[in-house]
Amino acid sequence: MHPTKTPAEIDTLINCRWLLPIMPESQIYENFSLAVHQQRIVDVCSQSEAKGRYTPTTEYHLNDHLIMPGLVNCHLHAAMSLLRGYADDIPLKSWLEKHIWPLEKRLVNSDFVRDGTRLAIAEMIKSGTTCFADMYFHPETSAEVVRDCGIRSQIGFPVFDLASAAGQTAESQIHRGLQLHDTFKDHALIKIACAPHATYSVSNKTLTTLATYANELDLPVHIHAHETAREILQSTHQHGQRPLQLLHDIGLLLPQTQLVHMTQVDDGDIRLLQDHKSQVIHCPQSNLKLASGFCPLAKLLDMGVNMALGTDGAASNNDLDLFSELQTAALLAKGISGNAAAMPAHKALRMATLDGAKALGWQAEIGSLEIGKYADAIAIKMNTIQQQPLYNIASQLLYTNSGSRVTHSWVAGKALLKDSKLQSLNESSLIHSAQQWRSKIVPDQFPAGQ
Amino acid sequence: MHPTKTPAEIDTLINCRWLLPIMPESQIYENFSLAVHQQRIVDVCSQSEAKGRYTPTTEYHLNDHLIMPGLVNCHLHAAMSLLRGYADDIPLKSWLEKHIWPLEKRLVNSDFVRDGTRLAIAEMIKSGTTCFADMYFHPETSAEVVRDCGIRSQIGFPVFDLASAAGQTAESQIHRGLQLHDTFKDHALIKIACAPHATYSVSNKTLTTLATYANELDLPVHIHAHETAREILQSTHQHGQRPLQLLHDIGLLLPQTQLVHMTQVDDGDIRLLQDHKSQVIHCPQSNLKLASGFCPLAKLLDMGVNMALGTDGAASNNDLDLFSELQTAALLAKGISGNAAAMPAHKALRMATLDGAKALGWQAEIGSLEIGKYADAIAIKMNTIQQQPLYNIASQLLYTNSGSRVTHSWVAGKALLKDSKLQSLNESSLIHSAQQWRSKIVPDQFPAGQ
Repeated sequence: MHPTKTPAEIDTLINCRWLLPIMPESQIYENFSLAVHQQRIVDVCSQSEAKGRYTPTTEYHLNDHLIMPGLVNCHLHAAMSLLRGYADDIPLKSWLEKHIWPLEKRLVNSDFVRDGTRLAIAEMIKSGTTCFADMYFHPETSAEVVRDCGIRSQIGFPVFDLASAAGQTAESQIHRGLQLHDTFKDHALIKIACAPHATYSVSNKTLTTLATYANELDLPVHIHAHETAREILQSTHQHGQRPLQLLHDIGLLLPQTQLVHMTQVDDGDIRLLQDHKSQVIHCPQSNLKLASGFCPLAKLLDMGVNMALGTDGAASNNDLDLFSELQTAALLAKGISGNAAAMPAHKALRMATLDGAKALGWQAEIGSLEIGKYADAIAIKMNTIQQQPLYNIASQLLYTNSGSRVTHSWVAGKALLKDSKLQSLNESSLIHSAQQWRSKIVPDQFPAGQ
Repeated sequence: MHPTKTPAEIDTLINCRWLLPIMPESQIYENFSLAVHQQRIVDVCSQSEAKGRYTPTTEYHLNDHLIMPGLVNCHLHAAMSLLRGYADDIPLKSWLEKHIWPLEKRLVNSDFVRDGTRLAIAEMIKSGTTCFADMYFHPETSAEVVRDCGIRSQIGFPVFDLASAAGQTAESQIHRGLQLHDTFKDHALIKIACAPHATYSVSNKTLTTLATYANELDLPVHIHAHETAREILQSTHQHGQRPLQLLHDIGLLLPQTQLVHMTQVDDGDIRLLQDHKSQVIHCPQSNLKLASGFCPLAKLLDMGVNMALGTDGAASNNDLDLFSELQTAALLAKGISGNAAAMPAHKALRMATLDGAKALGWQAEIGSLEIGKYADAIAIKMNTIQQQPLYNIASQLLYTNSGSRVTHSWVAGKALLKDSKLQSLNESSLIHSAQQWRSKIVPDQFPAGQ
């Protein structure tokens, strides 16, 4: 790794003013370099050491920038970016049943998913996300788009029993999903998960079938759980137990189970999460905007639960900026716990990177800038007036709108963003396509809001 | 106003794709123009009408932009931008007593206030604020800086009895403040307020003196109130009453009284606010970050209380981006009230503009784009990928990081920002000065955070 005489030829050397590796914890190095070869990190060292050690094919000099691992957005419905702000200021149940689901039934096809997923990926790359967990219809199309764009993704194939845009039986959805899983089983950037919508929209019979596959194939399970108080009441009424207990009894509460939302958490729920080492995905902006409730982030962290972060879909957020989501998560954790020392900055940054990778079962490959991991990294400008003076880099990253200052992004060593320009997507054609979808969806509406 | 034959010569015509006037309420006009002459708005009309009516000295063509009133940031300590992120993750009492106040005692002089206020104004102009309410030491210096920069401000002269950086008796602070009030009494852009720190740091005797001046001179009163539960307990213990009741009995609960924070509100407090038509300034990010409590925004609005918005100082935020603050306020209002329909987008935008102007007693002059008001306006780019597709302009303004997309700003018709470039401040010299202050304040510290 550290040749003493002849410099080694490597693909890429990224020199930066600051490097925040996430591991080792709470460290920031100055005037450092990230050496990348064959998709992976081969060295993290001072710029002066790197100079002697490496002859890179491509070299970056980012002397006003900080390099850190790319962010991991653990829950969204990517294609719903085409419905951004389409129905605002409405509670979850009527938002889904009266607005989103009917529209999806009428509209969603493979073209919608292709264009919407591209739009979402463009927005995520530009704001620092290099890996995301998706949950939407036509997962075959999403997987193709992800492959073409070069971003990293866990694609969850949807499973619904209730009326939905799927227009298919649960059996058929599972069958298609397992085929997809097989197609991508050796792909470095794509992982397939099963994504039953929620316990209120998928039957126990279907969930039981999924439990078998999840256990046999070590398939990640991605599911909305305990999003609202109403969901808990309904489950208790219908099944005599809370959704988490139901999932447990069915055999779906696994270490690879990703429980999205969890705004309703009692002591029994915490014990189940601890016992089964399941993952919790916190989506604070969506929970606030739909008035769904408050996930007790600080408390769950104290209890040893792995907490990751998601934006949820742009239709309920209205953006996919994970830095903005992280700021909300940290502020809310302090407010809700009544403890200003809760969620210090380094811990928050870890939640949006390494802990997110862990939630997706990818912690050995990404989430920190360590030798041997994939080179999934981002560069952020740190010399704007909004960041001065810079006493505490971690705190400034967290609280001052860093998503708008991301200038570079690499996934497995490949540049997806350079000097704020997308490399694998055409921004103006994406904007054009989004505007065409808007004209199709609401032909006569002037976009003024209520 | 509407000449039919000869076009009128005017100073400035701003043509834009969309215009959000705030008044009339919930309206957005397309392909509109704002006509400005001698500092004031002389017309709001379609671009085609404007073409026939006016011959402007300066004309803007902002066809990808939205124009709206500049934001009103109703509470900050501008010069504290030099302490941005200096002491994070600490509760209010020890944050003030162990970190901020000792540092201010050692450090704060007129140079600090000049450089810090300039830095704050630069950041605010770049993120859409055209008017702010300041509360800090050396208000004479702040007033000079504000005058030189051309922004609009209510400068509150500080009054403290407890130990502070003032190093002066309360009498002397009041005397200086009233002189300042006299100096600026005819200035269009500057208004002087008295700013007693809080009931726990200013004696009843001093507050009584201020009540006399406030009533005689119609002086605005700007005061921290009900920021934490501890403040209420201490006041009840010491005075037998809550701070709001104390202010009332002293004669300081007036229509021009601006109560900052109000995280602790009971029914008696609400009745006092209603009876005296006092103003409440909500600073949600500071309240969350210091774990101070939750101001019941939606409830107070329902009760008819005028609610305005403030960022608080950069030392407890860590930025001065009022769009980001507004997003937090709207999300939190929905979450806290449990009502997804609370704080719809147009109502939120009004809080950050016209209701803010009202809190400062400036609603006849600014806060909406209406004929006769001062031309305090901003332009925001609306064609980025993060905003597509655009179904609901108000909602996208509110939820998708608009502060980073402000490109132009005018105060009383004068351009302070053009194409994202500051016109009355030098950005690079501000960054240099901030870095010098950092070196002085923490000579040996590497800015890595804990």
